[in-house]
This record gives sequence, structure tokens and C-alpha cells, in this order.
Amino acid sequence: MRKNCIVAQSGGPTAAINASLAGVINGVINSDKYDKIYGAIHGIQGVFKKQFIDLVELSQEYNSSIYHLSATPAMYLGSCRYKMPLPDESPETYKQIFDIFEEMNVGAFFYIGGNDSMDTAHKLSIYAAQTGSDVKIAGIPKTIDNDLVNTDHTPGFGSAAKYIATSMLEIAHDTYIYDLPTVTIVEIMGRDSGWLTASAALARNTYNITPQLIYLPEVPFSRAKFLDDISENITANKNVVVAVSEGIRNKDGEYICASDASYDNFGHARLSGAGKTLEYLVKDKLGIKVRSIELNILQRCAGHLSSRADIDEAIKLGESAVKFTAEGNSGFMTSTTRTSDTPYLYTIGMSDLSHIANQIKTVPLEWITPEGNDVTKELIDYIKPLIQGELSHSFRDGLPVYMDIPHLVHRS
Amino acid sequence: MRKNCIVAQSGGPTAAINASLAGVINGVINSDKYDKIYGAIHGIQGVFKKQFIDLVELSQEYNSSIYHLSATPAMYLGSCRYKMPLPDESPETYKQIFDIFEEMNVGAFFYIGGNDSMDTAHKLSIYAAQTGSDVKIAGIPKTIDNDLVNTDHTPGFGSAAKYIATSMLEIAHDTYIYDLPTVTIVEIMGRDSGWLTASAALARNTYNITPQLIYLPEVPFSRAKFLDDISENITANKNVVVAVSEGIRNKDGEYICASDASYDNFGHARLSGAGKTLEYLVKDKLGIKVRSIELNILQRCAGHLSSRADIDEAIKLGESAVKFTAEGNSGFMTSTTRTSDTPYLYTIGMSDLSHIANQIKTVPLEWITPEGNDVTKELIDYIKPLIQGELSHSFRDGLPVYMDIPHLVHRS
Repeated sequence: MRKNCIVAQSGGPTAAINASLAGVINGVINSDKYDKIYGAIHGIQGVFKKQFIDLVELSQEYNSSIYHLSATPAMYLGSCRYKMPLPDESPETYKQIFDIFEEMNVGAFFYIGGNDSMDTAHKLSIYAAQTGSDVKIAGIPKTIDNDLVNTDHTPGFGSAAKYIATSMLEIAHDTYIYDLPTVTIVEIMGRDSGWLTASAALARNTYNITPQLIYLPEVPFSRAKFLDDISENITANKNVVVAVSEGIRNKDGEYICASDASYDNFGHARLSGAGKTLEYLVKDKLGIKVRSIELNILQRCAGHLSSRADIDEAIKLGESAVKFTAEGNSGFMTSTTRTSDTPYLYTIGMSDLSHIANQIKTVPLEWITPEGNDVTKELIDYIKPLIQGELSHSFRDGLPVYMDIPHLVHRS
Repeated sequence: MRKNCIVAQSGGPTAAINASLAGVINGVINSDKYDKIYGAIHGIQGVFKKQFIDLVELSQEYNSSIYHLSATPAMYLGSCRYKMPLPDESPETYKQIFDIFEEMNVGAFFYIGGNDSMDTAHKLSIYAAQTGSDVKIAGIPKTIDNDLVNTDHTPGFGSAAKYIATSMLEIAHDTYIYDLPTVTIVEIMGRDSGWLTASAALARNTYNITPQLIYLPEVPFSRAKFLDDISENITANKNVVVAVSEGIRNKDGEYICASDASYDNFGHARLSGAGKTLEYLVKDKLGIKVRSIELNILQRCAGHLSSRADIDEAIKLGESAVKFTAEGNSGFMTSTTRTSDTPYLYTIGMSDLSHIANQIKTVPLEWITPEGNDVTKELIDYIKPLIQGELSHSFRDGLPVYMDIPHLVHRS
């Protein structure tokens, strides 16, 4: 008898996470090993609560839903922020999950998410190994932050980078119009890694020299050096644009906007205000006309400007996860290995979950200029292939058409 | 001998102001009355400084430049914020300008801009009338705020409204993913009029009920009522999204974020922080998970998501200005009169500049619900035709291709 599968999504939204879901659905439909594919609502918590959607049925109901789903931002199945206990600490938690797996004749569980989700998948695979369960556990990467190790990059990053670079180019056009010195500071997401902020450099072209300054969390931030950098650039270029990571810290590791820091369940600091802090600094110390802009959550959920390269790859990583579990593999995350920048070529493989969870891939220091205020050509060449191509979005009444999510909407 | 023309742009950027410039260039090229069309760099100040670009030459140099220009956000010619003295106060200022007009054999001057720009155009036309000059003066409207009187709406508003509605829909997808009560507050531009904030309502569709609450500057804002509104909605809907204008004021006319207010040359208050202020209010008083998002300048310069209806109309308003001056008219702003919502039909005419400058068109109170926390169907029907259609953008290396602006970029 063919087994069924469960898929869930977790962590923060991206523009590509539903493309990986579409890939998993496609993979199961085209597999002779699996029968049904159920989507758990709100991540692993949907498994506990037995809240499932029959996704094969869904894909039959909507004719072209798989590709429509791929173009829809954020989690179609909803998300959760739930930290699983260790199997040894709470075996009953795991027993509950695996009892449900058995009850539903589940052969494979797919978790699409970032670092914390890979931690959950890893723990599930440990428990499966300990108890001799034959349920295969697979992680599928997603995170705009691009901070997962053992993969060339993560789906979601390319679309976010495309949105950031496009926004930076449009901000440049907005900035050059006045004939007086101006500083524009753009705060970009990225708590511990500077990949997203670095992608601002892709806005540079034959006429646009901005952003002239880029500050990543990988390099200790000095207020004095920053003010020197601004002073030097404003004389030469008049309109200066700065890309700055929300996570910049001084040499003692203190966030530049420490007063706003608080901590979430996973012990991550929640930040806001690096851009605002630097805006006030420029105003107070240099007296130059200055503004700050926070790109905020639109950089992760702007589905109308997804990267086709990103979406295509996210689908393939989902399909491959199904293929690999069907071949008997478990405890892995699908990952990409780049074999060439131009033309962009990559292979898809498996990375052991035990080597991924709770690690962070930061920008290599050799891809940051010695002055610590810009990125090198190598970093631009790395990002460039990931933002190529656009989706052909349907529009209705002037707005992009996304997949309906009635199961997530609470109405009075 | 055929006369020449000068065109300039002023005020804040929009996604459609270059489409009106393209319309003026088109109009002059196709006119048998005019010869050259010069673009003044940085608004009226470019006239004083005699900084001009030959735009006919430009359009010959770049094959399809007129349409390429239409798709480029912000001012191709640069902008200025220069308040003209009254002709009686400083006749020498006007003499200087009209001497340059005569020297360059100018028959018509076109100023594309908002309220302050129409003020400048109006003063120039007063001086021309007083001195018997035959230079025709025409204004062409643009402002994302949609606050000019005597025209159905202003170019630039439709594209901004499309960006805002799309962003609100994407924020909705980002908001529904968690299975816990959340409040998301989105701050939208609009100092004195709520048109832009109202356009957030267009994000609602068959599955998306957000934003549930919309607050415009036309209605006095009460913190107590706001907290009641949130409490009522959070119980019923779990995920509440609020659209709020940057310009909301209490019943005494004080901005909700008064501490941030300062004043620019035109006596307008510069605001920031209405969203942040309400975020802290919800957090402190209700203890609900809350975040605030400021759409910021991207709502005016996101050329990749322009409304085709908006761009097409902006071109026509530019072309018509040339036609009207060629017919001997002066001292007018081109304007639209709507004759039908569905299908959307309008005519283009002239509004006397003396009735436009320094007036503000606010949202009619009958288009705001009696509770003051939402807009009516009439307002949605008014905005809907203005966000229809998309441009076919060229992309290169993953980014939209805009017109080069080397004349605005200062390099070291």
C-alpha cells in the first residue's frame, strides 16, 4: 500500500516558500511511491491539532493551482514559532506526533523553513532513528536571510534581493532630483548576516553610483568611521545613499539601537531603528539633510516582484525532497551546490540535518572591502544569478492575483 | 518663425511625472506651431541658471525614449523647492526669467508639478498678463496626494494607489500566517488629505478582509476610540490590519506624533511616526502583539508597479497642454473631468490657475463611514479605475530598466 505524506511550513514568510510547497505537491502527484499529500496548518502545531488540508484534492480543484500557488507570497499553510523540546526531554511530545503519522499512514514528513524549522526536522529525525520509525524526515530550506549553512543559498533570498535592489534603484531616482546635498539611509533586514543588505549593491548601474556605502553586521560598526565616510562621500557625490543592516553592532557586540532590543522565544534579539539612529546621528553631527527608510516586511512578501530563478529553484528543491525520501533517505535538507556563476549552473543534493540546525552562514570577510563599508565584485557576482527573471503575474482589478487563503482568515 | 518651448518639473517625485514630460515632448514634436523643446534642470531654478537639455535631440538619440521615459519614476529633469516671490514684490526676478524666454525665443512654458508648482505657474502667468508678454504659461498636474482642486484626480496618484493596495494585499498574506492575535499598523503618506490611505481599501477581495480599519486626516482622531476599534476587531478577526494616514490629528488639530513635527519652506509640517505612536499605544494599553510599517517613499517612486491608466493619462495631459497653448491659451492647468466610473471615461480640459494654487482637495466626509474608521464604496469606486493596467517593463540583469539620468548624478 502506498504511504501518505505530510508537509508543513514554518518561520517567517518569503516570496518563494509556496513554490517549494508546490514542488512537494508536484513531487507526490508524480511519485509512484506516495498516495496523498496533506498540508498541516500552522506548521508542526497543525500536526498536533490534526488540522490538515488534502493538497492533491486542492490541486485537482484549481486547474493551474500549482503554478498559481508558486507565485503567492507568505505561507499558504500558515506558520508557527514553536520550539520543540529535545526527544530525550519530552518523548511524549514525539510519541504524539509519530502516533498521528502512523494513524494517517504517513511515509514522509516535509518541513519547509529556516534555521529553527531545520532544528525541528532534525529532532524529529533523531526520534525516528531512536525508535526505528520508517517515517522519512526531510527539510526544505527557505529564508530571505540566506543564513543556512551547507547550501549555496536559500530559496526566498533571491526574490528578497531582487526587491531590495529594485527598491534601491527607485530610491536612487528619488534621491538624485534635488540639487542639494542629501543623505538617504536605507535599513535592510538581516539580524546576523549581511546577505540582504549586500544585495543593495546590485542597484548600481551605468549611471547610478548609489548606494555608495554598505554596512553589514559581519564588521564592527564605528559611529566615528561612519561619519567620516559620509563626510568624504557627500563632498564628492552630493547625493549619498547608505544601505545598512538592521543588525549592525559596535566592537563590543552591542546593537547600534540597543534600546529597542528585546528577545523572542528562540533567544534572537528583535531590532528596529538602526536606520533611524544613524539618521539622527548625521543630522546632529553633520547638519546635512538626511532621511531614513526602513524597507520592512515588504522585502520578504512582495510576491509581485519575485525572482523567476528563485521560484524555479524553490519548486525543484521541493520536488527533489520527495524524490530523495522515496529513494529511502531521511534526516536531510535539500540543498544546492553552484558549479558556475556564468552561466549559472547548480546541482541539487542532500545536506545532513545534524550539520545545519542552529548554525549561521555569514558573509565571508573577504567579500567585504578592507574599509568595511562596501562589498566586493565577488559578492555581487554571487547574488546576480539569483535575481534573474520575472514571473508572468495575473492581475485582476489592478492587483496581482494570489492563491485564496480562506483557511487562514478569521471572520466575525 | 516657430517658437520654442521650455518644460520643467517640480515638487516631490511620482511614478507618472516623466510620462507628462514625455507627453509635452510628443506634443511639441507633433505641433506645427513649435520648434524646439528645452528641459530646464531642477525646475524654475534651471531657467535662472540657463541649464537646459534639448529634448527633441534626446528623443531622436534614443529610439523609443519617449515610452521608456514614461516608465521611469521621479523627475528626469530634477526638481526644486523654490517659492517664487509675488510679481509685485520682486519684478526683477520675473524680468530675469522673461528676458531668458525672449532670448531663447520661447512661446510657451510648461510646469509639471503639484500645489506649489501651480503657485509658481500662476505667478508667471500674472506677470505675463501684466507685462503683455505673449509667452503662454501652462501647468500640468502631478502629485501622489491627489489634493489638487478642479481636476477629477492628479497623475501619480493612481500609481501610488496601486502600489499601496498591492503592498497592503501582500502585507495581508504576511499577517494571516500566525495563529495568534496580531495588529499590523501601516502608515501611509498624505499630510492633509486621505486619498492615499483610502486606497488601502482596494486590497480587500473575496478572502482578504484587511485592512479592517482606515483612519484619514479628514476626521479628528481619538486614541480612546482607536483602542475600542482594535479591541472590537481583534476578538472577531484575530489578525487586524490598520491603514493610517501620516497626517492624523486629534480634535484640537494636533498631530498624533506632534513631537516629530517641524516645518519646511512652504509652512507644511513634516511628519513621521503616526504608525509607531499607535504601535506603542496598542502595546502599552492592550498588550496585543503589534507591529507598524511605514510604506515611506517607495509609494511614490516604485516605477516597476505603475498603473497603466495613470501613465496613459499623464501622457495625454502633457500632450494636451501643448495643444492648448498652441491654440493661444495661457494661465491654465490641464485637468480631467470624469464622465463615468464603469466604463471609466473622462475628458481633458483647462482649469484656471488662479483657482488652483494654495487650495487642498480633501476626501469628502460622505465618503468616510459615520464611525470615522473606514471608507465607503463610493470612494473605492472612485479610485478603482485609476489603478488598472500594468506597463510592460524591460528588465536587465534582474532589474527594471529606467531612463539614464547622468545629468543629475554627481560623481567624484
